[in-house]
Amino acid sequence: MGAVPSDLEIAQAATLRPTSDIGAVLDLGVDDLEPYGRHAAKVELEAVGARRPAGKYVVVTAVTPTPLGEGKTTTAVGLVQGLGRLGKRATAVLRQPSLGPVFGIKGGAAGAGWSQIVPMETMNLHLTGDFHAVTAAHNLLAAMLDNHLQHGNALGIAAHSITWGRVLDMNDRALRNIIVGLGGRLDGVPRQARFDITAASEVMTILALSTSLTDLRQRLGRIVVGYTGEGAPVTAEDLKAAGAMAVLLKDAVRPNLLQTLEGQPALIHCGPFGNIATGNSSIVADHVGLSRSDIVVTEAGFGADLGYERFVNVKCRTSGFVPDAAVVVVTVRALKVHSGRFKVVAGKPLPPELLEENPDDVAAGLSNLAHHLDIVAGTGVPAVVAINAFPDDHASEHAVIARFAHQRGVPCAVSTHVADGGAGATALARTVLEATEAGTHLRYTYELDVPLTDKIEALATKVYGAASVDYAPAAASELKRLTDLGFGGLPVLIAKTHLSTTATPADRGAPKGWTLPIREVRLAAGAGYVYVLSGQMQTMPGLGSHPAAERMDLAEDGRIVGLF
Amino acid sequence: MGAVPSDLEIAQAATLRPTSDIGAVLDLGVDDLEPYGRHAAKVELEAVGARRPAGKYVVVTAVTPTPLGEGKTTTAVGLVQGLGRLGKRATAVLRQPSLGPVFGIKGGAAGAGWSQIVPMETMNLHLTGDFHAVTAAHNLLAAMLDNHLQHGNALGIAAHSITWGRVLDMNDRALRNIIVGLGGRLDGVPRQARFDITAASEVMTILALSTSLTDLRQRLGRIVVGYTGEGAPVTAEDLKAAGAMAVLLKDAVRPNLLQTLEGQPALIHCGPFGNIATGNSSIVADHVGLSRSDIVVTEAGFGADLGYERFVNVKCRTSGFVPDAAVVVVTVRALKVHSGRFKVVAGKPLPPELLEENPDDVAAGLSNLAHHLDIVAGTGVPAVVAINAFPDDHASEHAVIARFAHQRGVPCAVSTHVADGGAGATALARTVLEATEAGTHLRYTYELDVPLTDKIEALATKVYGAASVDYAPAAASELKRLTDLGFGGLPVLIAKTHLSTTATPADRGAPKGWTLPIREVRLAAGAGYVYVLSGQMQTMPGLGSHPAAERMDLAEDGRIVGLF
Repeated sequence: MGAVPSDLEIAQAATLRPTSDIGAVLDLGVDDLEPYGRHAAKVELEAVGARRPAGKYVVVTAVTPTPLGEGKTTTAVGLVQGLGRLGKRATAVLRQPSLGPVFGIKGGAAGAGWSQIVPMETMNLHLTGDFHAVTAAHNLLAAMLDNHLQHGNALGIAAHSITWGRVLDMNDRALRNIIVGLGGRLDGVPRQARFDITAASEVMTILALSTSLTDLRQRLGRIVVGYTGEGAPVTAEDLKAAGAMAVLLKDAVRPNLLQTLEGQPALIHCGPFGNIATGNSSIVADHVGLSRSDIVVTEAGFGADLGYERFVNVKCRTSGFVPDAAVVVVTVRALKVHSGRFKVVAGKPLPPELLEENPDDVAAGLSNLAHHLDIVAGTGVPAVVAINAFPDDHASEHAVIARFAHQRGVPCAVSTHVADGGAGATALARTVLEATEAGTHLRYTYELDVPLTDKIEALATKVYGAASVDYAPAAASELKRLTDLGFGGLPVLIAKTHLSTTATPADRGAPKGWTLPIREVRLAAGAGYVYVLSGQMQTMPGLGSHPAAERMDLAEDGRIVGLF
Repeated sequence: MGAVPSDLEIAQAATLRPTSDIGAVLDLGVDDLEPYGRHAAKVELEAVGARRPAGKYVVVTAVTPTPLGEGKTTTAVGLVQGLGRLGKRATAVLRQPSLGPVFGIKGGAAGAGWSQIVPMETMNLHLTGDFHAVTAAHNLLAAMLDNHLQHGNALGIAAHSITWGRVLDMNDRALRNIIVGLGGRLDGVPRQARFDITAASEVMTILALSTSLTDLRQRLGRIVVGYTGEGAPVTAEDLKAAGAMAVLLKDAVRPNLLQTLEGQPALIHCGPFGNIATGNSSIVADHVGLSRSDIVVTEAGFGADLGYERFVNVKCRTSGFVPDAAVVVVTVRALKVHSGRFKVVAGKPLPPELLEENPDDVAAGLSNLAHHLDIVAGTGVPAVVAINAFPDDHASEHAVIARFAHQRGVPCAVSTHVADGGAGATALARTVLEATEAGTHLRYTYELDVPLTDKIEALATKVYGAASVDYAPAAASELKRLTDLGFGGLPVLIAKTHLSTTATPADRGAPKGWTLPIREVRLAAGAGYVYVLSGQMQTMPGLGSHPAAERMDLAEDGRIVGLF
């Protein structure tokens, strides 16, 4: 593999197909597509419900990632391109990147090298404004809530019980803990408050899980913003805010059509946070792809313990769509890190000794891959191991992974899509196609009609490898309270670190026999789940000492530079 | 005049022309227009500079408005439609409405009745996302500023001297005065801060005043966010934020093409606040209209004492474009209120006695019209009085206004464009066309090379009718400090109430001989002006006890309802 030019250079040099051509691949005509800029369009909702989902459904997950990420997005794009080389009508369904990470540490998030979504500037910046619409809808509810307090608080909301914050699509740590409403009598009611990043907004997850405009409207109405002095939930409907929120989200509910570097359809839609939310793209986008192409490749956030688990237990349970295969992305460097012998820090170069040929280091980290394959196996979905190849990898290291997969009976392929585009992913594509023929017997990790604590314990033991769960007293009583309020039938998300399979970020491999602490319990009644926190979850990231924004600019000719 | 259906009903029933047809009126081809949705497009910057501005240039201003507004937007739209009936290629250039007022008290702001911009939902909601881009660019700078404090404050910024706040496009009074950076060591540096509404962002005015992408980039770099301990200004360039801000604003700098209800081009672009900012649409949009149609009709915010004064002294001085006529919109109800005999409250019905036929009440308020005509005359621009007719007006009341204008030698026309569309505005259109033949000898209120205090005094005496200016000690020393720092050559904006010609909102008519208080001085170095506050200026509005948002919703068929 030779040197790869920068992602932005590759993307800017690409010749794009007209959006109408991309739409035609999905049998979407002029009436089905509303153009947003020259190379993006929104798919009309009328086109979503028109056909039955009949295509193959492939989800891309990964081992526990290093802070650098293991290339799930680029593997998903590469796989779609590889399937294209095999003559398949394949569609990528991906999340929209958040501006926070783009301007923070990460730069662009549209794939890498020769496996990217284009226009990458469109994807990484405002796209068609969906995130901004989520921000506006979320903050309208917050403003109406504080306004309700200001104008006499007829609903009797207890200020200390308010759970609804505000959001911005920005990494801005100074907004994590704030006091609002200072000043005079006309300047609001003083209280402690917070901003989260927009990807953490419940509205974002609602958008991703809604199956129709009507469903969206109803979910918005069910959002619980806090409680009365008597402990009764107060909803967005009670505040008469849900209708206006739906008005703001009317366009955002439609998926955005872009393309891969090799001209396949890419539906980019929603971007719920991977820790406290579902970490998956939208049901509506999947529906479009499944009903109008041979195969959909979608990506679930973080490792299989997080995004994939929620893909199955929340997203698929809501949509009714059954995945035909799960691709587990693994990299040599991730397994070396899981050996416990190396430390990788985001924004810093890799340690040079990690790049040296050493199959033993890879083998020492295989327990992590095994764990994620166990998670997938537990759901009854056929797995494929995809080795996302890097220029510094060594064949002996790939061989360790391939041998291990073979021993487990899991098909495995090396993919060089970053350096070679779709041509580098045909082996993976063939392997995936074969796997989708095996047949899925989808098993949820828990049933909905068991107690919330049973759901937590099922996730802890079956998905994370914990031996037991330890509830903080406040968490235990909140679980009971939510059950008493009628929310016991909701699925549960466990917000835990994505940097290990356990609740301890520094853990490597896949430790067993530990105890999962549950410190806090929160409700997302509109999105439709209860989420519990197993540690400090950062819902508003910060910027580093040299944010990616510092290197971005416009060139003389107006072209964007420095957006990697 | 019969009953008029709701604005939204009229707008939704309209048959729109294809955007390409509207573009063709401006001789803009497929390559010059980037579609954003079915009935909006962005005009490429290449098309802006390609031709010389040669069309007639008409600005719409008004008497001192009541809190309900006197219909400048709808008169501007009606006038364009009336000009169309006379066979002229006319273009409307208007500001984008802010979401805050749309969801607050005002509802839609795309005109009224049969003189509206369509699609009105597009105009009133996200449009093409320009306001959101301003929000993002503004808040990126804020995040990078607080991040700079967090990471050691190498520039030595004095936290108490920070002038750069954050913005949201929302009426949210609880964010006026906040404390940020609470929590632990990694959660920012605690300090007092604020959110303004996005329309109040300096970035919005920069966008409106920029003449090119290069000019935009340079203005962003010149933004002063605060001062070092030694009092040296710290800029967005110093924080390495200006390039990334320009990246976020790359698309927002292009004007948006919509249409009037009668199918003329309407360029909707930017929306700087009318009190602390320029209150005018963009120079780039005016340039497109002036270089590609017979006549441009643009609107300046509030009365002639505010938006019009800034139109001349800031916008025209920057662009070099010379207006050929100024339309002063007047309503019977506004002059009745200026009699001092009635009180009008936003969001409440008009007092019934105000609607009774009473020419004497109208005559008693003429001093206000006279004052605004004096302001226009002072700038050397031919004036036209436009009586924006309401169904409850009486002919005898219109006659009072017409007689008065005649006595002053100012042409006057009654316009029924709200009820009758362009057909109701042909008399006004003829009168305006005639006025544009008179010839302008544009006079600025002050020259740039005089001291800041001289500029303030020129505005106070020549535009507001004050006898003197009284500087608070802090304001006087800040004016001196800014002069010492080299900002003395900038134009000055005086932020004062729009509800009277004086600095006292309750004043009616046009009192003379009073003293203008100057309490505070602020710098907008990127936008390129100093602004001084003559009273409490609200830069973050609040919501009323029943915000307009409460009545908005989606109907069964997905159509928006309740957006008046």
